[in-house]
Amino acid sequence: MGEALKQAQMAFDRGEVPVGAVVVAEKRIIARAYNQTEQLNDVTAHAEMLALTSAFNYLGAKYLKECTLYVTLEPCVMCAGAQYWAQLGKLVYGAKDIRRGYSIHQRNLLHPKTEVVGGLLAVESEALMKSFFSKLRP
Amino acid sequence: MGEALKQAQMAFDRGEVPVGAVVVAEKRIIARAYNQTEQLNDVTAHAEMLALTSAFNYLGAKYLKECTLYVTLEPCVMCAGAQYWAQLGKLVYGAKDIRRGYSIHQRNLLHPKTEVVGGLLAVESEALMKSFFSKLRP
Repeated sequence: MGEALKQAQMAFDRGEVPVGAVVVAEKRIIARAYNQTEQLNDVTAHAEMLALTSAFNYLGAKYLKECTLYVTLEPCVMCAGAQYWAQLGKLVYGAKDIRRGYSIHQRNLLHPKTEVVGGLLAVESEALMKSFFSKLRP
Repeated sequence: MGEALKQAQMAFDRGEVPVGAVVVAEKRIIARAYNQTEQLNDVTAHAEMLALTSAFNYLGAKYLKECTLYVTLEPCVMCAGAQYWAQLGKLVYGAKDIRRGYSIHQRNLLHPKTEVVGGLLAVESEALMKSFFSKLRP
């Protein structure tokens, strides 16, 4: 998650909502990405979407059953849906997103086999988000 | 929707699950795409995702408030989430997806301002899907 936080910091430095993600397979990082919705002018360019696509490319595989996605913020509905299709093995997220997080929906949007851990480095992840939005909306 | 069906046929011809999508702005088609999950080896490469990203590029805008997305199959959770972020003006879909469609979830996953019309050319869209899967699983 430390590496995902570094990605989030890179997003922050570029004026993007600071969310970072990495994908790990066999204890190695195979994909890193940060939110690029501003730079790419594309609201679907979330850190997780970019990291998943990068992981598919790296592995030459369509499914990430043996992979762990680390992301600094709880994924949104879109990113949860993408993880469903990827049949992601494990999701580890940092801060909870009480407004847009996938878990505000009653029915599980992730793949039933995806293991979930929330709250890892949540304080640091949230601090970065708060710092970003306090600069944006003083 | 006829144009979206043509896109779905192109997917069919390339061995992809036959779903097609177009985005219309001011009565003109500004983006066309078909499902490319096999070709791109990426389960997030749904017709709608590709069409949305293409529309953002065309318009140089991150939101599609004045646009209509025509898609031959009811969008999944991921694609509904993407349409949420795009603040899509109107969604028109063909066949209903009773297993993976976004509407099986109780809470609305689309943007609250998105107008929805379902069932346009549903018979044709579904026939293409059935034909595809009957070839795949004889």
